[in-house]
Amino acid sequence: MSKKIANKLENFSQWYNDIILNADLAENSGVRGCMVIKPYGFAIWEEMKQVLDKKFKETGHVNAYFPIFIPKSFFTKEASHVDGFAKECAVVTHYRLKNNDSGEVIVDENAKLEEELIVRPTSETIIWDTYKKWIKSYRDLPLLINQWANVVRWEMRTRLFLRTSEFLWQEGHTAHETKSEAIEEAEKILFLYKDFIENTLAVPLIYGLKSEREKFAGAIDTYCVEALMQDGKALQAGTSHFLGQNFAKAFDVKFASRSGNLEYVWASSWGVSTRLIGALVMTHSDEKGLVLPPKLAPYQVVLIPIYHSQEEYDAIIEKMKLISCELSSLGIRVKEDFRDTYKPGWKFSEYELKGVPVRIAMGPRDLKNNTVEFVRRDKCEKQIISFSEITSTTQSILNQMQHDLFLKAKLFQENNTFSVDNFDDFSYRINNGGFVLAHWDGSPETEDEIKKLTKATIRCIPMDAKKENGLCILTGKPSLQRVIFAKSY
Amino acid sequence: MSKKIANKLENFSQWYNDIILNADLAENSGVRGCMVIKPYGFAIWEEMKQVLDKKFKETGHVNAYFPIFIPKSFFTKEASHVDGFAKECAVVTHYRLKNNDSGEVIVDENAKLEEELIVRPTSETIIWDTYKKWIKSYRDLPLLINQWANVVRWEMRTRLFLRTSEFLWQEGHTAHETKSEAIEEAEKILFLYKDFIENTLAVPLIYGLKSEREKFAGAIDTYCVEALMQDGKALQAGTSHFLGQNFAKAFDVKFASRSGNLEYVWASSWGVSTRLIGALVMTHSDEKGLVLPPKLAPYQVVLIPIYHSQEEYDAIIEKMKLISCELSSLGIRVKEDFRDTYKPGWKFSEYELKGVPVRIAMGPRDLKNNTVEFVRRDKCEKQIISFSEITSTTQSILNQMQHDLFLKAKLFQENNTFSVDNFDDFSYRINNGGFVLAHWDGSPETEDEIKKLTKATIRCIPMDAKKENGLCILTGKPSLQRVIFAKSY
Repeated sequence: MSKKIANKLENFSQWYNDIILNADLAENSGVRGCMVIKPYGFAIWEEMKQVLDKKFKETGHVNAYFPIFIPKSFFTKEASHVDGFAKECAVVTHYRLKNNDSGEVIVDENAKLEEELIVRPTSETIIWDTYKKWIKSYRDLPLLINQWANVVRWEMRTRLFLRTSEFLWQEGHTAHETKSEAIEEAEKILFLYKDFIENTLAVPLIYGLKSEREKFAGAIDTYCVEALMQDGKALQAGTSHFLGQNFAKAFDVKFASRSGNLEYVWASSWGVSTRLIGALVMTHSDEKGLVLPPKLAPYQVVLIPIYHSQEEYDAIIEKMKLISCELSSLGIRVKEDFRDTYKPGWKFSEYELKGVPVRIAMGPRDLKNNTVEFVRRDKCEKQIISFSEITSTTQSILNQMQHDLFLKAKLFQENNTFSVDNFDDFSYRINNGGFVLAHWDGSPETEDEIKKLTKATIRCIPMDAKKENGLCILTGKPSLQRVIFAKSY
Repeated sequence: MSKKIANKLENFSQWYNDIILNADLAENSGVRGCMVIKPYGFAIWEEMKQVLDKKFKETGHVNAYFPIFIPKSFFTKEASHVDGFAKECAVVTHYRLKNNDSGEVIVDENAKLEEELIVRPTSETIIWDTYKKWIKSYRDLPLLINQWANVVRWEMRTRLFLRTSEFLWQEGHTAHETKSEAIEEAEKILFLYKDFIENTLAVPLIYGLKSEREKFAGAIDTYCVEALMQDGKALQAGTSHFLGQNFAKAFDVKFASRSGNLEYVWASSWGVSTRLIGALVMTHSDEKGLVLPPKLAPYQVVLIPIYHSQEEYDAIIEKMKLISCELSSLGIRVKEDFRDTYKPGWKFSEYELKGVPVRIAMGPRDLKNNTVEFVRRDKCEKQIISFSEITSTTQSILNQMQHDLFLKAKLFQENNTFSVDNFDDFSYRINNGGFVLAHWDGSPETEDEIKKLTKATIRCIPMDAKKENGLCILTGKPSLQRVIFAKSY
């Protein structure tokens, strides 16, 4: 097996990159900062999309599509939004190329745009410019719209899936009659994300509100779900924003209310991205490669024959096709690897690397005994199963594995969540990784200072934590509840 | 009913636009040339995507995602490609905005890109730059990859769905060991498109090869499917290209063949876009609005109660919920419009406008008689159906309507396809609309001249037409088969 993976403990970052590349999830492209999502990686994203899209539709949302370009002037309409987003972005300034005298292709200076266009880093502005036309009366509300799209945020230091100049995501943009409805929507989506990520990705989360410093540029409140990676760093997995009337005011979107007054519309927006694939890798994978939760695995089962003669090959393939057919009919995603050009040992390593949950191999002895050999990816133990039990065993292994991956990650999260009461303990814990619960006086300046000293940020302010009087670990000023700090991606 | 639709015969173009806008399919955005695809229009695209994506996967294709940006230098690598595509395009030249001294947001001249990036008009170049890394041996072939994406082609005159600066599409890009395999792929996709568009969109097609003038910039051969709109103009509905080794040579993609030689890879590419929604509208719709083939209708059935009292409303709604549940359980997409804020007559017009295939209404008399009133969108005749027959009637109407829409359009196409043998007849027919079969001497210059004189272009050179000796309608030179001319979108 020629594909090498760095040691996870010694070089987590290299280990991550090795898995992404060797498991054929993605790679860097010829365009700085932009990745190519390879078919295997894209298939995982497609599974995610399908599950999420169904959840959005079940909760009354519909999909639509808005332009990729945003006129520069739109950004400037919401003051904090432009500060957060208009800075590092791709700017379209011309609309034509031409050949110069020496035949080179150059930008045609006569085709300069009157107003520059920004490739969307997020779509609040173009969408609220559109909503102005759609919303006249309370009868037009709520508007519950989602978009699956590519977005661009110019990044200087990029990492596959975690931080790339272009990425894929969904962005929901909703409009409501009342403040409480918009808050309810933002919270509903937070819990929809939590349910999706915990149950489908098997990634356990903490959740809560962002601090002023960390919230979305343009939001009143940002709700978030955060996961803990195996190196002890936090990863923001999804955010849901209560936008108040900020964008309605910026784009002058008013509606005739039930009482007949003209009022500004209330809003939410929310999104998750291909970054979730990074979370998946860093939560479950091991030294042998990717480990995929069965619900998201493009192939849940791989079938590999072991044989010495053509005769054995034929007999084993015949049996395996039957197995494949039975499993597929139950909706299980099966990959048949009957290629003669690769040895079974090579295939075993390859599918371990790709994180296929169940490997079923069959050799001459199995053929005689009416058995197959099962290996579950996360355990790597062999199990001999009789023919009649293949479907039931597969189903139960897939369910069990999904469950176990979550429990294992949850245990890791619990074992790496610490409560501290002074700055020395805080620094020590932050340096060693994990979520650290600590009292904080609530001021942005204290948050900045803690970040400067330790590189830790407030990942979230828990929503349902018990109130507890305490003293800020940095300033000693009073605090009413602990917040969660960590170093993060 | 306040939404007005122009007369189709008097002003086809206005009629088209009125339907797109009033049926809530799409609208122009605040960004020049870019459209907003509204939820109802997007739902049709989602249905199309689902059917097509399944067909691609059944024929061995997988999805992936490539960067939206293409370095300028990539374009120049394939000579005819750059001529065709690099001209009218969105050019990214900078990656940052900043505030100037007066607080305005302006482009930061210090953040100029070393090499300009083009927003992809099509992805051959970025993909073949990537394939170079993926293809080493014949064992890596074929590569059968599709991408669902947004693309940008700067358009001066735009029309919703038909010609916009940004549109959505799928683009397949395949790599093969041999010329014949690549041609076979291009033809396989042509027939996949034909099957999809005829059976799902109910739009009848002609198909064949493009002439030199009309083929894709960078292709050896372009296969196409073409539809005839109700105004007698042709619309290119999809294209599939045999690219030869053009892109392999431009990007130096060679593989070790079975015989051990290093050879250039053979390629195909193919795509259909949101333009198909335009084809759908212009093929089936009428003076009352959109007519949707049942297979693509976001709602196949709408349920509308007619009542005078709350008591009637309650009793009717109870029955209708039962109907809705039964139809849904059969996989039929049902819209319940039980709103009290709109009158039944308003709703009738609204769903006619939106092209919902079956309307089921129920009033007090129906309640007493255990009946409902059916109206099939394309016929607009009322039918009283007893309760016990609702599901079977709905199913058979949906099937019949799908079938009838195709037949009606096919008849229209046949009635508007003419064979002519001299230039006067040719001009007359072209001016009056339709497909015109005529002899042509095969030269690009003659094609140009015909276009100049009549605005007609060769829509396709039929692949399976009988060979027939004749004389070119313009030059009188010999010709071996008739080709199909029309004015087109």
